[in-house]
Amino acid sequence: MTPQPAAAPEPSLVATPVPEAVGPGGPGRGAVPPALVTDLYELTMAAAYQADGIEHEATFELFVRSLPPQRRFLLAAGLDDALDGLASWRFDGDDIAYLASLGMFPRQFLDRLQGLRFTGDVWAVPEGEVVFAGEPLVRVTAPLVEAQLVETWLLNRIASQTMLASKAARVALACGDRSFVDFSARRDHGVDAAMAAARAAWMCGAAGTSLVAAGRRFGIPLTGTMAHSFVMSYDDERDAFRAYARCFPHGVVLLIDTYDTLEGARHAVEVANELAAEGITLAAVRLDSGDLGALAREVRAILDDGGLGGVRILASGDLDEHRVAALLAGGAPIDAFGVGTQLGTSADAPTLGAVYKLVEDADGPKVKLASGKVTLPGPKQVWRLDGRDVLSLDHEEVPGGRPLLAPAMVGGRRTGVESLDRIRERAVAALDALPPALRSLDDADEPLWPVEVSPGLDRLVARVHAGLPGGGGS
Amino acid sequence: MTPQPAAAPEPSLVATPVPEAVGPGGPGRGAVPPALVTDLYELTMAAAYQADGIEHEATFELFVRSLPPQRRFLLAAGLDDALDGLASWRFDGDDIAYLASLGMFPRQFLDRLQGLRFTGDVWAVPEGEVVFAGEPLVRVTAPLVEAQLVETWLLNRIASQTMLASKAARVALACGDRSFVDFSARRDHGVDAAMAAARAAWMCGAAGTSLVAAGRRFGIPLTGTMAHSFVMSYDDERDAFRAYARCFPHGVVLLIDTYDTLEGARHAVEVANELAAEGITLAAVRLDSGDLGALAREVRAILDDGGLGGVRILASGDLDEHRVAALLAGGAPIDAFGVGTQLGTSADAPTLGAVYKLVEDADGPKVKLASGKVTLPGPKQVWRLDGRDVLSLDHEEVPGGRPLLAPAMVGGRRTGVESLDRIRERAVAALDALPPALRSLDDADEPLWPVEVSPGLDRLVARVHAGLPGGGGS
Repeated sequence: MTPQPAAAPEPSLVATPVPEAVGPGGPGRGAVPPALVTDLYELTMAAAYQADGIEHEATFELFVRSLPPQRRFLLAAGLDDALDGLASWRFDGDDIAYLASLGMFPRQFLDRLQGLRFTGDVWAVPEGEVVFAGEPLVRVTAPLVEAQLVETWLLNRIASQTMLASKAARVALACGDRSFVDFSARRDHGVDAAMAAARAAWMCGAAGTSLVAAGRRFGIPLTGTMAHSFVMSYDDERDAFRAYARCFPHGVVLLIDTYDTLEGARHAVEVANELAAEGITLAAVRLDSGDLGALAREVRAILDDGGLGGVRILASGDLDEHRVAALLAGGAPIDAFGVGTQLGTSADAPTLGAVYKLVEDADGPKVKLASGKVTLPGPKQVWRLDGRDVLSLDHEEVPGGRPLLAPAMVGGRRTGVESLDRIRERAVAALDALPPALRSLDDADEPLWPVEVSPGLDRLVARVHAGLPGGGGS
Repeated sequence: MTPQPAAAPEPSLVATPVPEAVGPGGPGRGAVPPALVTDLYELTMAAAYQADGIEHEATFELFVRSLPPQRRFLLAAGLDDALDGLASWRFDGDDIAYLASLGMFPRQFLDRLQGLRFTGDVWAVPEGEVVFAGEPLVRVTAPLVEAQLVETWLLNRIASQTMLASKAARVALACGDRSFVDFSARRDHGVDAAMAAARAAWMCGAAGTSLVAAGRRFGIPLTGTMAHSFVMSYDDERDAFRAYARCFPHGVVLLIDTYDTLEGARHAVEVANELAAEGITLAAVRLDSGDLGALAREVRAILDDGGLGGVRILASGDLDEHRVAALLAGGAPIDAFGVGTQLGTSADAPTLGAVYKLVEDADGPKVKLASGKVTLPGPKQVWRLDGRDVLSLDHEEVPGGRPLLAPAMVGGRRTGVESLDRIRERAVAALDALPPALRSLDDADEPLWPVEVSPGLDRLVARVHAGLPGGGGS
């Protein structure tokens, strides 16, 4: 017997009946087809367009409305994933049967979905590029039904990964010439998020990730030490260190804070010297609790006194870019940072206000005028100049500027696939080239990088707002 | 040619070499096998245990160390997903080949992984139950290698979904007798997170979700209106309303804020009255911007004056439990709330400090003493009494209490699968029964629900800390 839900859904707000339970099927079970990663209204709108015979092309742009104060810039990410979904976009027979079971869609719309592919053009800012509020990250031109259906998918993929990369970029800035690795998998918002966090960290110059699945899928080097439970599984901390070092003799990293960090450091020295005869080399010790700055200094002294001047110190434990910066500013002799929760959830700014807006259709440029949510009309390009960006119409040239959006799909086919190495190279170079105002980790109440509007775009805005020909939304 | 990464990884901190690029393969591409959702150190520890002949059983507990101030309670979630992964736990041939390619694992360990299944016992708090800091949500007893390997997976699944359900619970409390629906998919941290958010909202009594994939997988009713772009695709807002209503004549919800909300309301009245003759009924209008409270009042008046007293008002636009509560406290005539970003990212508390700790092995109860991270030894049970919980040893009885942990897997097999309806019923009942101190949405600096320690557990803690027999970690 299936119990009734305790709170009955509101029939007039819910478009579909409460179906028979289809089994619990957890969120993590199996891949979700991109075409179903869509809000219901994308489908209802598409059906209404079709029913009304509206089949023209339309252009939508995906952009972040404003930056959170904790971010001075964004680092574009998620495009490869987003495009992969568009290239494989389809509703299979079971998907169609499910949609039919909702009893709301016209048959001819479901028939159309059955054969639907994404056939549009996509221009996009490559992954690893620095971007700012209001700048289109992705521009989609496609038959209206297709352009509409892909909205939720694109926003989910681009916004979440851009958010993660933008956070990882700050961690990389804080670390400077020290290393960092991604330890976030256990705290991220799901498996998908953990994979994206590892990839985002790697993009920004991380030395590796702890997540094995990310190592396998992306070719990212793996890193790891041991857990406190490992040390606790032996009666003596030194026995735990010996067992681990003998199993992994090259580049051993020992976790020394299970009981007492300084005693742990002395144990590490004792075991390292003892095992040197077996050809085993200690690479580093890891601190994961307490006052990391003070402990690192004391541990450094113990290691140096024990003849282990070359052994490095890895610190972890709820670190973020601010704590890393403070530790380094305080002169903490920490060589590398394991950054987890804060990186993998972008905890200080866990959302980006990304939107996907109609900017042009068969009637010309479009604009949204709702309170506080005004958009700029027309398909646009972003130009990077010295010290500023310019938003232009897509056919304008901005002398001296470098255009950021490039073709990524033509007629539903990807123009190419960038290697993650290439993306990492771009991101690391972009971070290296950041001006001081953007490198600061402090909150910013205002945008610190001017994003100007080109003369052509400015004229179009005036025309559209005046309701003149070539303008919509009057 | 594959470019060199711009920042070379630190060889001594990275256990594995930089492999040849394996292609970009985005985070969202295909399902990730649960066994690979593991930090490298789980594998290195397991290999070291095996190499050292350590094959005893061990018990680990997963709990949240402390609640963020923004949470007065947690709602357990993620168990179905977590157990599903344990039940299907395996490394396939390609996984083993990848691990072998890292050049770090002993052959006999890789051979063992090839046939490894999870054979342990799991006790867990059912999904939808209210829980507090320090209380085990999941207790795993298994051969040490297995118990260790599943850590990252369990933490990722349980912590993120418990976080989402705990946020959704607050939204449900704020809404009271009004409805809410999940609109979060586009802002969530990936597809997995979006599925979990829809499920978590439904658990807590939501009327539906906008995410089609969640509707299909979980049987959750779908809900949706239209986007501003739909309205903008027509020259006249009223034409957009007419087209949509004719395509979906039952329970039409119209978005009225694309240009001017009050004008939109008047247009909705005009179109509703015009289409009534065709048997089309307007169910609701949706506001998505501006001063929602003031607009709702004015829109209500326009609807009532237009003879649409039965048409309801749905509000959305960066809502959270605080804004919903303030709107309702101000008497806003809003009937239902679409809650997105804040719900789906748990934005005010986007992480839970969940940990997975060894509490017992062949030597007896274990404890971790690292600074600020002390754990309670021994396998435990949680008892709910009137106004307090008691943490006991697993074999203790606490008179008058209801035990929260129940067997979920025996010998690697699930004891059963709860329907999502059953989980929802439990969660909604638990929220209905919350005492006033826990219902408050205000921040709390201290725990508001006493979690006491039983006499037996208290004695064990004393023994362990004294380093007496039956205690570890001395």
